[in-house]
Amino acid sequence: MIECKLFLAGEFVSTNKKLEVTNKYTGKLLTTTCLAHREILNKAIIAAEEAKQACKELSSYEKFTALTFIAEELENKKKHLAKVLSIESGKPIIYAIAEIERAAQTFLIAAEECKRLPKEYMSLDWTLNGKNKEGLVNYFPIGIVAGISPFNFPMNLAVHKIAPAIAAGCPIILKPASSTPLSTLELAHIIAKTNLPKGMVSILPMDRTTGNLLATDDRINLLSFTGSPAIGWELKKQSGKKKVVLELGGNAGVIISEGVDLKKIIAKCLAGAFSYSGQICIHAQRFVVHPTRFDEFLSLMKKETEKLIAGDPLKKETRISCMIDEENAKRVDEWVKEAVKQGAELVCGGKRKKSFYEATILTNTTSKMKVSAEEVFGPVICVEKYNGKIEDAIKKINDSKFGLQCGVFTDSVTELDLCFKQIEVGGIIHNDVPTLRFDQMPYGGVKESGLGREGVKYAIMDMMEPKILVK
Amino acid sequence: MIECKLFLAGEFVSTNKKLEVTNKYTGKLLTTTCLAHREILNKAIIAAEEAKQACKELSSYEKFTALTFIAEELENKKKHLAKVLSIESGKPIIYAIAEIERAAQTFLIAAEECKRLPKEYMSLDWTLNGKNKEGLVNYFPIGIVAGISPFNFPMNLAVHKIAPAIAAGCPIILKPASSTPLSTLELAHIIAKTNLPKGMVSILPMDRTTGNLLATDDRINLLSFTGSPAIGWELKKQSGKKKVVLELGGNAGVIISEGVDLKKIIAKCLAGAFSYSGQICIHAQRFVVHPTRFDEFLSLMKKETEKLIAGDPLKKETRISCMIDEENAKRVDEWVKEAVKQGAELVCGGKRKKSFYEATILTNTTSKMKVSAEEVFGPVICVEKYNGKIEDAIKKINDSKFGLQCGVFTDSVTELDLCFKQIEVGGIIHNDVPTLRFDQMPYGGVKESGLGREGVKYAIMDMMEPKILVK
Amino acid sequence: MIECKLFLAGEFVSTNKKLEVTNKYTGKLLTTTCLAHREILNKAIIAAEEAKQACKELSSYEKFTALTFIAEELENKKKHLAKVLSIESGKPIIYAIAEIERAAQTFLIAAEECKRLPKEYMSLDWTLNGKNKEGLVNYFPIGIVAGISPFNFPMNLAVHKIAPAIAAGCPIILKPASSTPLSTLELAHIIAKTNLPKGMVSILPMDRTTGNLLATDDRINLLSFTGSPAIGWELKKQSGKKKVVLELGGNAGVIISEGVDLKKIIAKCLAGAFSYSGQICIHAQRFVVHPTRFDEFLSLMKKETEKLIAGDPLKKETRISCMIDEENAKRVDEWVKEAVKQGAELVCGGKRKKSFYEATILTNTTSKMKVSAEEVFGPVICVEKYNGKIEDAIKKINDSKFGLQCGVFTDSVTELDLCFKQIEVGGIIHNDVPTLRFDQMPYGGVKESGLGREGVKYAIMDMMEPKILVK
Amino acid sequence: MIECKLFLAGEFVSTNKKLEVTNKYTGKLLTTTCLAHREILNKAIIAAEEAKQACKELSSYEKFTALTFIAEELENKKKHLAKVLSIESGKPIIYAIAEIERAAQTFLIAAEECKRLPKEYMSLDWTLNGKNKEGLVNYFPIGIVAGISPFNFPMNLAVHKIAPAIAAGCPIILKPASSTPLSTLELAHIIAKTNLPKGMVSILPMDRTTGNLLATDDRINLLSFTGSPAIGWELKKQSGKKKVVLELGGNAGVIISEGVDLKKIIAKCLAGAFSYSGQICIHAQRFVVHPTRFDEFLSLMKKETEKLIAGDPLKKETRISCMIDEENAKRVDEWVKEAVKQGAELVCGGKRKKSFYEATILTNTTSKMKVSAEEVFGPVICVEKYNGKIEDAIKKINDSKFGLQCGVFTDSVTELDLCFKQIEVGGIIHNDVPTLRFDQMPYGGVKESGLGREGVKYAIMDMMEPKILVK
Repeated sequence: MIECKLFLAGEFVSTNKKLEVTNKYTGKLLTTTCLAHREILNKAIIAAEEAKQACKELSSYEKFTALTFIAEELENKKKHLAKVLSIESGKPIIYAIAEIERAAQTFLIAAEECKRLPKEYMSLDWTLNGKNKEGLVNYFPIGIVAGISPFNFPMNLAVHKIAPAIAAGCPIILKPASSTPLSTLELAHIIAKTNLPKGMVSILPMDRTTGNLLATDDRINLLSFTGSPAIGWELKKQSGKKKVVLELGGNAGVIISEGVDLKKIIAKCLAGAFSYSGQICIHAQRFVVHPTRFDEFLSLMKKETEKLIAGDPLKKETRISCMIDEENAKRVDEWVKEAVKQGAELVCGGKRKKSFYEATILTNTTSKMKVSAEEVFGPVICVEKYNGKIEDAIKKINDSKFGLQCGVFTDSVTELDLCFKQIEVGGIIHNDVPTLRFDQMPYGGVKESGLGREGVKYAIMDMMEPKILVK
Repeated sequence: MIECKLFLAGEFVSTNKKLEVTNKYTGKLLTTTCLAHREILNKAIIAAEEAKQACKELSSYEKFTALTFIAEELENKKKHLAKVLSIESGKPIIYAIAEIERAAQTFLIAAEECKRLPKEYMSLDWTLNGKNKEGLVNYFPIGIVAGISPFNFPMNLAVHKIAPAIAAGCPIILKPASSTPLSTLELAHIIAKTNLPKGMVSILPMDRTTGNLLATDDRINLLSFTGSPAIGWELKKQSGKKKVVLELGGNAGVIISEGVDLKKIIAKCLAGAFSYSGQICIHAQRFVVHPTRFDEFLSLMKKETEKLIAGDPLKKETRISCMIDEENAKRVDEWVKEAVKQGAELVCGGKRKKSFYEATILTNTTSKMKVSAEEVFGPVICVEKYNGKIEDAIKKINDSKFGLQCGVFTDSVTELDLCFKQIEVGGIIHNDVPTLRFDQMPYGGVKESGLGREGVKYAIMDMMEPKILVK
Repeated sequence: MIECKLFLAGEFVSTNKKLEVTNKYTGKLLTTTCLAHREILNKAIIAAEEAKQACKELSSYEKFTALTFIAEELENKKKHLAKVLSIESGKPIIYAIAEIERAAQTFLIAAEECKRLPKEYMSLDWTLNGKNKEGLVNYFPIGIVAGISPFNFPMNLAVHKIAPAIAAGCPIILKPASSTPLSTLELAHIIAKTNLPKGMVSILPMDRTTGNLLATDDRINLLSFTGSPAIGWELKKQSGKKKVVLELGGNAGVIISEGVDLKKIIAKCLAGAFSYSGQICIHAQRFVVHPTRFDEFLSLMKKETEKLIAGDPLKKETRISCMIDEENAKRVDEWVKEAVKQGAELVCGGKRKKSFYEATILTNTTSKMKVSAEEVFGPVICVEKYNGKIEDAIKKINDSKFGLQCGVFTDSVTELDLCFKQIEVGGIIHNDVPTLRFDQMPYGGVKESGLGREGVKYAIMDMMEPKILVK
Repeated sequence: MIECKLFLAGEFVSTNKKLEVTNKYTGKLLTTTCLAHREILNKAIIAAEEAKQACKELSSYEKFTALTFIAEELENKKKHLAKVLSIESGKPIIYAIAEIERAAQTFLIAAEECKRLPKEYMSLDWTLNGKNKEGLVNYFPIGIVAGISPFNFPMNLAVHKIAPAIAAGCPIILKPASSTPLSTLELAHIIAKTNLPKGMVSILPMDRTTGNLLATDDRINLLSFTGSPAIGWELKKQSGKKKVVLELGGNAGVIISEGVDLKKIIAKCLAGAFSYSGQICIHAQRFVVHPTRFDEFLSLMKKETEKLIAGDPLKKETRISCMIDEENAKRVDEWVKEAVKQGAELVCGGKRKKSFYEATILTNTTSKMKVSAEEVFGPVICVEKYNGKIEDAIKKINDSKFGLQCGVFTDSVTELDLCFKQIEVGGIIHNDVPTLRFDQMPYGGVKESGLGREGVKYAIMDMMEPKILVK
């Protein structure tokens, strides 16, 4: 077992602080990585500062070359990387492969977008004194970016910070989740082969105390955080003068309207509900179903849920495996039990075995129960009916402190328009679950689900600062 | 009765060639305008050439000031102008008022758009040899614009050429329709009060021979023609090196799907069918109705059509009046008779009295009959059913050499998407008739219905020439 | 003397808390306004919440109508409003008139931009699983906006928050500066005449404690602050989950290169240096001059500065008058004295009489002296030379914690390009002073000068939240 | 020697009409290709019509996959392809390699742009009756594209039609130049390996009579022609109802201002003047030099011109070789002799040997001489002086019936701005020769140099038709 080194400004370095990484399915120790302490982080920041000018001067040709190289290498090493990801996270291998493919796609998009960084050219002669005046707005890198990424998409959610930073010409220091640092450290080995300035990318696992410095250190210009609402909003408070982007969680809903062919949509619903045990920001947690279709939907979901193959994430037929740790499985178990005690009906699932929690369907829940009101981040869904009017379904979805995405199954133009206008979220997914995300689209939440948008082009925008030349 | 003078490069001038303009409703002589001959046109072109540089140098402030002034004056003089328009064209006064309001709106949009002329700023460092290279694209006036506008919207369709030309900084020579030159000559009096360069606008009624010079003269850089397909395509052939934009006619269709509330839409259908006696490029000529709704729709339309108030266009209750001339009324009469002879059924209407032709509904028509295949440009519609599948409705609409706009009444997302993707037209109007047009939207047809798009911003684009500065 | 009422959600109301407003030139009491206390603010927030949906549903036609009405009323009442503004702020009347004109222009731009709110339409079929997918991004109002505006442009800097908020469809609560609340309360009387929803606009003078609630109250979604860096950055810390835009100050620089015709630019330099006694965020504070032109420039500036007419701001020949209060005049006096003690040379000015401070030129200053390093916000400039290489001038400008705008006088493409790329500011003004701002351009600073950009379209962007519909 | 077959709708087919292709340097027969006759062309059009729907339905993923595959194959086979190109055209191998690289780049850009096809989403509620209305504009393939490409860039100028057509989803029929058909037929073998619909691409050498059908056949929707002005404008006349884009030639100019470091720019000037014997649309034909720099420039150019290595195009040191055929070399020879007779001075060159013509510099030319007024399309330049004022240089450049591109060497902002505003061309190249073109930039001429713009994104725009959905 080889110890993993940190990726500090283009070099792989060891430290005396260690982090043990386990195989999430077996629970056994997998490997040890070094942990960055304050001093290492300081070095990364200094290196980033020194690299700033070189990063800013990279041509789009140079960035494109590096970014497409990384994309290709991710594709080339897909099998290996997916295996690492699956083991460290407990994510079923078919989803792990899909994640590596998406990470490659994210780098490819960044490669293309770095040629198309925003630039504006405008007339300024709208008033008498502006005669012959024009403005050129160019967007320059904002400076040093700090990224904090979560365990649930250990590769692609880190890539959604790294790839845009490279495209924007910003040095970036990334803190991966402590439970799943291996994917990004594998990525570091690919990045190390490019010609990007040495100080441009650092990937540093670190404990929370050190990680907080990413929010508080004044030399950092942007903090881009993906993770839990509690931590995210706290970091914003500590962020001093820097810009902050928060991609947090939610309790995403799905509306199923009257005319829908349930057999056609059930596979999507199942995937939205239980992929990676619901440990997804846009996990389809709350199903709101037309009253005339409720019974049929519930029984179909139950039937299909019970067919889900559980087990070793490395097996390609596995669709549900362990959760990230036992602590979370226990939390989910408690929430479900509490809900049942409060009157919810358990349709299926509801059992825990160590870190494994069964795919669970509840009904008769209320919007006050934790399984509905909070981000469950586990394989649990609530299926309820609305009164048949789309306005009621919308009201139910909006009865939440979160607002990330929402799926809407309907063929009615009127219903879809109302949903788009009135559901308070960052994205409405038509005829699909909220769990759908394309890496180029603007992605992010409203209310307590976040601040700002990711999606390569949108993340790049946040990493750039406009400057106008008035001529 | 005062003779109307020509508007030649900012001056009102007389010529010895005259044009008699009649009151279309009474048929009596209304007034006489001068007609431009070749010499006058030549003067207008020379003045335009001399004004070119001054027009190009106008700031957006200067253009905005002139364009908003014109917009306000049109509003101020709305009543008078609408009356002139109604009399010279036979258009019911409520539609004439709406047209003047739209013309004011068109100038207002042009005022706003001239501040937002297209400009691009792009990186050119996509390849090794492009390091540090950037491009600035500015759009400059294309040069002299010739506009030819038709009788059916004597004011607003002329304004759709004049307003963009001013916004773009191009001198323009406009030939109004010979039957309805008065509205634009009234407009000329407003334009004359602005500070625009004298040679920037000429409004010159002329006979067809002289008008053809607008296509053939090499000093003119763009010909923008709105009128009949036959003339439009012929002018393109003669247009030499100049750019050509053609806004021609069609036989626009309407699809009425199953779930539609017919009572709610019947007023729109009626207006689309018979406003200004169908003398509108986007007249709703062909109705294609779901088989289960066909009978109800036909009887509703018949009932409402028979209630239409016909008569003096100056009365505010009038909804249908005379056609532009007896020749066209005869032509429509012949087409309807021919259709009936070929098997069509006359549901209502079908009678002519001089230049007045009744609102007429036909069914059992085929796509080969002139009333369906050609642009009827009269108060005649064909109502047919489709087989209940939207694909069949689309096929029926596409079975035409024209393709301007199409109305689609449906609440189905699937149907609407298919219509948008597959109907071969320039515009799909959801839950309304094809007769709807907003003056800022891109407007124009495919197939034999035209070449290019109008709509202020789009017309401006055609009147400008990009120039890149590679730095 | 009539007491001014607050503008609370469309109504003018009195409170028992009072604020005395003085004539800044005479120092005498001018009038009394009510001050909003916590309860009033709470009412404003509740009214804003209730108006949210109505504001969101306003069509661009409705917003345009209101915004152009306000613009026209500002123009109509320009003389009166400029007088009020001049008296409450001590701003010379010619600048006060210009400010009202700009405020009208800002409303006009907002009127036009509300028709052009951002919307995106994109293909999402970049990957195999995206076949036939598309995305529509619409931008919805972010919710309740709180605006805090400063004394130096009492009207236009408030308008830069109110006009975009109306255009975006957001309710706004504006806190004007306590020393100059009258201009915006006059504006309130104009706004009250529109048909905008009652709760959409509140204009509430309040003390700092109450004002801080604008940052801390969770019902407010965006805080847009214009004012001093110290307060701005402090408010960001307290801002909870809301978005924050900060428009702060700076110590803007001007570079004067070798080939410049000094006589042609001296009037601009003078205006940049001493307009409104330098109480402008983009006051031209630091002049960096080519060594061969230094002496000539300094003597020209001295000569012209000594000709500046000081006195009653209401007289149209006045170019410099009192500062906002004696406290600030004393502070400036101290800074100048301290600089001289530290080695600076006083070229002219340097005397204070109550709140009046002379136009003052210093040389031999260093970047550590307060007059150079801090935002002087008074009629004081530092004139220094660079070593003749543009890189040195840039370095001198960048040697500052601020970065708002910078003026560059040069005819060299190479120099201008370097300045645009390397000067760390929000705007480079070519051949003019940094004090130039057009109301449509993106405006704002980097480093400690702010966060985000204003300029109508840019402010609107910050007040809207994107939502994607994936179809 | 293997006969080359035609590429007809995805198949390689033989015909009994033959075309002999020579090695341009040795003059010997190289190979024989089949020539398409009317019947073959008809089959290609029918296949294109049948493929239309499939082409329209290609996702960007499918198009991207095909286009990047082609780009990579071009890179992989660069050496072979460059050799073919060099032999069939007489183009020095280093330029041939550069051309293949550019062709690969053009396909790559098209791959990226097909994901970013234009789409618009706009509010239509600007007027009272537009309440709640919105517009979606999608751009659909225009239909069948016909491309005609010239001999001078046998690969890349064909690719500038093929790649955008694929990106736009349009079937294309390309006619390569009869003297250089081999490069594109090689390309056909690469295209044949993709999964694009069979009828999407045909590459058919044909004689001019058959080629004219590309203009006259009504089933073709767009003609994109690159070639000589005489033929281009004639085709426009015959083009019926179809859209036409013309990329024609010119007599591009270069302005060399006072402060320029001539030694630094001479290599660029030399390349602009004599690359591929001046057989380039944007060949730098007319040099206009500041009077104080004229003598130095002329002697430098003479010195460097005389050092140019002439000879076998396949040798990598060769910089100038034979022209495309003896006929053209004779024509150039006659023009030069005529110019000398009319008073021009021959500075160097001026001799012909078969199809080889020396790099030739003339001075004392007038704007009436063919070598200056016409497109010389040979290795001949005119070097003249202007009176020292930039306005005079601009006037000299504009004294031409053409307007493609212009190079401007200056460091003066004022001069550059004037050149950008007033030179009548499609592109101003700052500090470089007009011969520079990046494949993504908008490229094309004004006056008699063309109609419309190429450059991948711009070519795609011309190949698409907007359709609005009004909701």
